[in-house]
Amino acid sequence: MTSRITRVLNHMKQNGLSQLFVTDPDSIWYLTGIDNHPGERMYGLLLKESGDHVLFLNRLFHVPEPPFRAIWYSDTDDCVGALAREVNEEHSLGVDKEWTARYLVPLMKRFHHLDVVLASDCVDDCRAVKDAEEQRIMKEASRINDTVMKEAAAYVRVGMTEKELASYIDARYLHYGASEPSFSTIVSFGANAADPHHSPDNTVLERGQCVLIDMGCVYHRYCSDMTRTFFAGEPEQEKVRIYDLVREANELAEQAIRPGVKLSEIDRVAREHIAAGGYTKEFNHRLGHFIGQRDHEMGDVSAVSDIVAAPGMIFSIEPGVYLAGDFGVRVEDLVLVTEDGCEVLNHVDKHWRTVG
Amino acid sequence: MTSRITRVLNHMKQNGLSQLFVTDPDSIWYLTGIDNHPGERMYGLLLKESGDHVLFLNRLFHVPEPPFRAIWYSDTDDCVGALAREVNEEHSLGVDKEWTARYLVPLMKRFHHLDVVLASDCVDDCRAVKDAEEQRIMKEASRINDTVMKEAAAYVRVGMTEKELASYIDARYLHYGASEPSFSTIVSFGANAADPHHSPDNTVLERGQCVLIDMGCVYHRYCSDMTRTFFAGEPEQEKVRIYDLVREANELAEQAIRPGVKLSEIDRVAREHIAAGGYTKEFNHRLGHFIGQRDHEMGDVSAVSDIVAAPGMIFSIEPGVYLAGDFGVRVEDLVLVTEDGCEVLNHVDKHWRTVG
Repeated sequence: MTSRITRVLNHMKQNGLSQLFVTDPDSIWYLTGIDNHPGERMYGLLLKESGDHVLFLNRLFHVPEPPFRAIWYSDTDDCVGALAREVNEEHSLGVDKEWTARYLVPLMKRFHHLDVVLASDCVDDCRAVKDAEEQRIMKEASRINDTVMKEAAAYVRVGMTEKELASYIDARYLHYGASEPSFSTIVSFGANAADPHHSPDNTVLERGQCVLIDMGCVYHRYCSDMTRTFFAGEPEQEKVRIYDLVREANELAEQAIRPGVKLSEIDRVAREHIAAGGYTKEFNHRLGHFIGQRDHEMGDVSAVSDIVAAPGMIFSIEPGVYLAGDFGVRVEDLVLVTEDGCEVLNHVDKHWRTVG
Repeated sequence: MTSRITRVLNHMKQNGLSQLFVTDPDSIWYLTGIDNHPGERMYGLLLKESGDHVLFLNRLFHVPEPPFRAIWYSDTDDCVGALAREVNEEHSLGVDKEWTARYLVPLMKRFHHLDVVLASDCVDDCRAVKDAEEQRIMKEASRINDTVMKEAAAYVRVGMTEKELASYIDARYLHYGASEPSFSTIVSFGANAADPHHSPDNTVLERGQCVLIDMGCVYHRYCSDMTRTFFAGEPEQEKVRIYDLVREANELAEQAIRPGVKLSEIDRVAREHIAAGGYTKEFNHRLGHFIGQRDHEMGDVSAVSDIVAAPGMIFSIEPGVYLAGDFGVRVEDLVLVTEDGCEVLNHVDKHWRTVG
């Protein structure tokens, strides 16, 4: 934990920041080991260049032996006032991108000239690079995901509803020791697969439709995430062509990953391959996202990403093609950047196949 | 929906606001019927005095036929820039208390002199007063909660774990048509009940311990919430005395509710009764909270609340006494303010009783 805080303080220094208010409970856990979730109440770790870090804690959510000076407040106390007394208004204050207006606006009213800057990157850049223990846990989370994806593919039957398949997947996660799905499991049949964020409903699987499954689980706090698309019966030729285009885009992108490569370049590799096959606007989202304690963490694999791949980073590679009213294909793995390339954390075969 | 927007515009006028950026997805649903959850992406309804309201929508999260002018943006677009073009920087801009720094800080950097004020109350004050249809749904959600609480009390057995009981409750909610628990079901045995926000764990129920159950479900988008405390075997005399003190505080508070009464006064009634019985700091939280689409909505029933009861408001009344390392009692109902008093939405008997 100490070395993590040192890394964050170095990031702050590089950004010219002497104070940073960390408010994401996952970041606070990452830096202190404290697992506290007081909901809408103010909760934060004020990191200071001086080393005199302060935790702001609500008395109703007891934290035994906080590792830094703690300021405890009650629901009826002026918690923003307590924070203001610790902030140096002559210096810029870094804040978390998720911090809410509920506290930020009153703080800014109190200090009319306080320079507030978005600075959660100071923590998120550290969180983006997983240490050995985090890598071990995330590999295990993806191993569970592989196992359950294979079981899900074997479980598919024509006549089943999307909800039924999603609920089977969620139950299998618990069986293998995951604590919960890392996001609402996506199961999309046929035309529903054209919506990348479709919620499973009572749609019944018909012969010939595609079956898109986007799923992940939480294991020891860390997430997995994978997508596979199957066919319930022999697909039409053009659908196979689209499928292969997406699979190849996924594989080409993964082959292009190595330390020093810009993630926008990885996105370009996948996008150009799909465009060469005739589909451009039909691949309507970024290629991937970082992942860790949350399924979507700071960091895009997209055309506008300025991140450069570095060993220890874990993110998704998930190209897709979506034809409204007809069908959709997405093929997604998690990858871990290594010293000379990347390790793909998912091992479920990616070639097209029939199920059901 | 139209009358809801008219009410919000009236609230804005009373607060001297000509523009309000509503970003809580539940509030947007309340005002437009749009059920959209684009996660960390910018999503908002800019309400203008002029009536030229604008919706900001991400292309990846399709909304069919938006009822107002829509500005669609992609992940690679400058969505804050699009918002800035619609904001009148000469006037104050009302923002949602939950809006995040991710968008608020860049907007404020763009307009150095823009006056930003917290103004979600303009919507939340409307949401706090439930219309006839909302009342009907919330009564049904509480009816399901009553049924499941009675089943849970009958299900308790010495030797069972907290998790086992919580999981039974969650399953019964689905059986009765609720979509999910409205918050993580709290089951606390013995000393665990002294922590008002204890998470159910593998603690095993022993004869003589208290069993505190705080639970609620979501039905047609709206929440219920109730707490009862039982005893697994004959309790000691002092524990019965504390229990009765808490129950009486709950009943006295409920009897004091009528339109025109300040909610801080209701809190005082309960708190003074418990203090007269010898417990002050042991009742360490507010008396209650508003509830609707979320289990905790805007509005406290607390010593610092300046809200005045009005017909249609629904909130919780939940006094408690917590003795660290020993036990805890809380008795909670939801109440609906009526024309001449209140209707208690929960009907599970509140007198102390043994279970298990």
